[in-house]
Amino acid sequence: MADLKGLHLIAGESCGERPAAFTAEEAASGEPLGPAYAEATPAEVDRALRAADDAVAALQTVAPDVLADLLDAIAEGIVGLGDELTDRAHAESALPLPRLRHERDRTALGARRFAEVVRDGSWIQARIDRGKPDRSPLPKPDVRAMLNAVGPVVVFGASNFPLAISVAGTDTVSAIAARCPVVVKAHPAQPGTCELVAAVVAEAVAAAGLPAGMFSVLHGAGHDIGRELVTHPLAKAVAFTGSLAGGRALFDAAAARPEPIPVYAEMGSINPVFVLPEAARLRGEEIAKEYVRSVNTGVGQFCTCPSVLLTERGEAADAIVAAVRERAAAVPPAAMLHGGILEAYRTGLATLAAADGFEPFTPIGPDTGRTVTPVFFEADVAAAGPEAPVWTENFGPSSVVVRCDGRADMERVAASLEGHLSAAVYGEDDEIAAYGGLIRLLERRVGRIVYNGFTTGLDVCPSLHHGGPYPATTHSGYTSVGHAAIYRFAKPVCYQDFPDAALPPELRDANPRGLTRLVDGELTRAALPPQA
Amino acid sequence: MADLKGLHLIAGESCGERPAAFTAEEAASGEPLGPAYAEATPAEVDRALRAADDAVAALQTVAPDVLADLLDAIAEGIVGLGDELTDRAHAESALPLPRLRHERDRTALGARRFAEVVRDGSWIQARIDRGKPDRSPLPKPDVRAMLNAVGPVVVFGASNFPLAISVAGTDTVSAIAARCPVVVKAHPAQPGTCELVAAVVAEAVAAAGLPAGMFSVLHGAGHDIGRELVTHPLAKAVAFTGSLAGGRALFDAAAARPEPIPVYAEMGSINPVFVLPEAARLRGEEIAKEYVRSVNTGVGQFCTCPSVLLTERGEAADAIVAAVRERAAAVPPAAMLHGGILEAYRTGLATLAAADGFEPFTPIGPDTGRTVTPVFFEADVAAAGPEAPVWTENFGPSSVVVRCDGRADMERVAASLEGHLSAAVYGEDDEIAAYGGLIRLLERRVGRIVYNGFTTGLDVCPSLHHGGPYPATTHSGYTSVGHAAIYRFAKPVCYQDFPDAALPPELRDANPRGLTRLVDGELTRAALPPQA
Repeated sequence: MADLKGLHLIAGESCGERPAAFTAEEAASGEPLGPAYAEATPAEVDRALRAADDAVAALQTVAPDVLADLLDAIAEGIVGLGDELTDRAHAESALPLPRLRHERDRTALGARRFAEVVRDGSWIQARIDRGKPDRSPLPKPDVRAMLNAVGPVVVFGASNFPLAISVAGTDTVSAIAARCPVVVKAHPAQPGTCELVAAVVAEAVAAAGLPAGMFSVLHGAGHDIGRELVTHPLAKAVAFTGSLAGGRALFDAAAARPEPIPVYAEMGSINPVFVLPEAARLRGEEIAKEYVRSVNTGVGQFCTCPSVLLTERGEAADAIVAAVRERAAAVPPAAMLHGGILEAYRTGLATLAAADGFEPFTPIGPDTGRTVTPVFFEADVAAAGPEAPVWTENFGPSSVVVRCDGRADMERVAASLEGHLSAAVYGEDDEIAAYGGLIRLLERRVGRIVYNGFTTGLDVCPSLHHGGPYPATTHSGYTSVGHAAIYRFAKPVCYQDFPDAALPPELRDANPRGLTRLVDGELTRAALPPQA
Repeated sequence: MADLKGLHLIAGESCGERPAAFTAEEAASGEPLGPAYAEATPAEVDRALRAADDAVAALQTVAPDVLADLLDAIAEGIVGLGDELTDRAHAESALPLPRLRHERDRTALGARRFAEVVRDGSWIQARIDRGKPDRSPLPKPDVRAMLNAVGPVVVFGASNFPLAISVAGTDTVSAIAARCPVVVKAHPAQPGTCELVAAVVAEAVAAAGLPAGMFSVLHGAGHDIGRELVTHPLAKAVAFTGSLAGGRALFDAAAARPEPIPVYAEMGSINPVFVLPEAARLRGEEIAKEYVRSVNTGVGQFCTCPSVLLTERGEAADAIVAAVRERAAAVPPAAMLHGGILEAYRTGLATLAAADGFEPFTPIGPDTGRTVTPVFFEADVAAAGPEAPVWTENFGPSSVVVRCDGRADMERVAASLEGHLSAAVYGEDDEIAAYGGLIRLLERRVGRIVYNGFTTGLDVCPSLHHGGPYPATTHSGYTSVGHAAIYRFAKPVCYQDFPDAALPPELRDANPRGLTRLVDGELTRAALPPQA
């Protein structure tokens, strides 16, 4: 830990105008964990965003291979930090070391994946409609379009993935892949982890010969710096993963700017699970076991943990509750990510326990200490109307088994859902056909529907959509994880009647990058005959 | 005109709770033009949006051919209105009949084009990553995704395209193609035109056997109804073309909702023209002629009319100014769309005329009467800093020739541009290479760059991007015209480990619709072997 300076990183330089004012806590004990960090000042925010803006021009024209190599070098740097990184992340988050090593490797893989996206290049969606000089009554102009960087992106690191959704996580690497400079606001619970990763990214940028201003990391424990970043005129987009209150505050600040900018906030959700009657009858125990594991994944601190399970009342439901009780009793206590989350979680538990019709059937545990065990409630669907507290996310390992009277009840609940990241449906193949109405309702309200599996299993691939209608996110069209995450940071530019040589290489007749392009309505990798 | 009832159309029924309160004006004379229309009430807004929401489920599963046939029937209905439609639109807009007949045909073509998009189906961007049960350490789930309707869309008709950006214009037909119900707010200057088109759309919906609630048109001259529509909880997206003030007000109202929704507002722009020195020297007169025509297109009431032309000071610039003066003198007076636009335009002219360093070199014309002629100013680049009134759009036929000192000045101006829909660059092929820096600056600030042509020539094709950074639009990622306009109204839904039969047809192994799909990273139209 001797390496940590407790400083911001702005355009390759360590700095700090204000005296250091806060430290991380060791998550398992609540004890302070040095070094101390300072709140970034408005002047530092301004410096970081000016440097980012100055880097736009260089990034606009850098060769794709250089950008891809940078992303690979970032991946290598992260892995190269070895135990120093995971030990610090463990101290700052209480997440188990094996999980953090896995997350470190997945974070590196994420950077490498976007390196591939950059090398492949087809993500820029080149579209070409060739001119027809002899079209009547008017000649058809030559029109070509491709995606282009939006400019400096502000990234807010999340505490529940100290590596994968943080300084060099999905937001940062997808923004860089889109040729956008990035200014990261480090999570105040994990400043040391953030500083370690920041250093390897800055080194990789320097080694690539790219402008240092394309990457900065600022620290701060208060809300001011977030507002300063989001309202800075040179910021062009924002990525955030965290609470609804936090995401909404940033969204509101960005929408109120003289020039509004998009805030892509992923704000968690309930991820309801619908267990259809046959599945409950045939596989109730197995489902209960997976349910407990899913609720407790990352100590309940995944955005995709299921907070509600609905099933038909009766023997199968009773058996599920009994199996959940038994499984939950075997889960060892674990510390949550930081004091703020722990406190909010305990408040949420108290709210649920005090609500009419919600009965805990596993121990709620003491109000003190740093550790928790998963808490399960049961309720009748009559108590779980849209206003019930069960539909407000309580981030942490708690969930409610809701008993209902079959399909109509399930559809009624689905119809009254707000937006969520995901939902799961457990069913037998011969009963799912009767639940098409439920699936149609879920399509409108969630970003991902899992069949016979829990929503916490999230596979990163081109088809992945980790998003959903509000309040799951602030824009249902975008994902924060997976290949499509890059589209948050790009906008189309259209070129009309340009001479071939003045076009970006991606749109030239010869197709020098060998991209898949939409040419006169057909997808092709072919080069085009030169224009007359 | 005997057919006009002066009523709203809600889910196939003509209705009006309030007494009629406003009429259109004959644009050329300012005389009232019956019938009178009522302001829609909050209850009517609610009824229209409830009916729209009720129609979502039917639209979600309707066969693509039915939807495509509906769009074709709308096209046929619009053309079938014949002179009745164009005569009324002419009375309400003062736009010439030949232009309106052309616009009518283009509007019908727009509906047909989206019928083709629906039939082709590939726009839904099917993505499939097949499962790998034997992947280590964890099996890979089967993940598939496609786009899905966002839900009820509110469309605001624009007055400058009484047909093409109105009741059955680009917003409505792209939303229907995306399976979204539509509630249109008719432009209060053109209620009769809107009522005529509304009737044919409602007839086509009924003939298709689709729910009447998928389409409603409400009238109103005040701001209340717009706010009611945009803040209604069942509205899921908004499309608007019009003024910056109007679009921003809707954006702000939508962003402040408990559930914020996207407002895709296209709010016009300056569309600067850069005439490079060689082009000015060799083709100044021809460019001047096209410039006058472009400035005066639709009496200067296109979003893409150029309000600024920059060129290097000297003989060529003087020749351009002289040629503009001569050409402008030959333009006959014409009436603007309505009294509100006329008044705002005259105020804008007065502001520009009063600004330091801006000299009109064509007659400003009288402050009275209904007609205008194009007005050109000249200014030195020193007077045209970012705060100068020339950078605030004055909707109507006026433009400023700005003299500058060559490339550095042009780049300085480009660097200080806000977001615009488009820009034009006139150059010789051997000088354009030296202006790569200018092009790079424009890529960041405009949605479309035209080479050796004016921005008012807009060809509708898959490559078209009619959008741009704020304040040209409220989201730089989307276009309001062209095939990609449909993406404003769709969001991805992801299916994990679904049985083939429970998937939407677009994602099934057999690929029954023959779509182009991204399968395991490769684009293909092939069917997939059935899963084990």
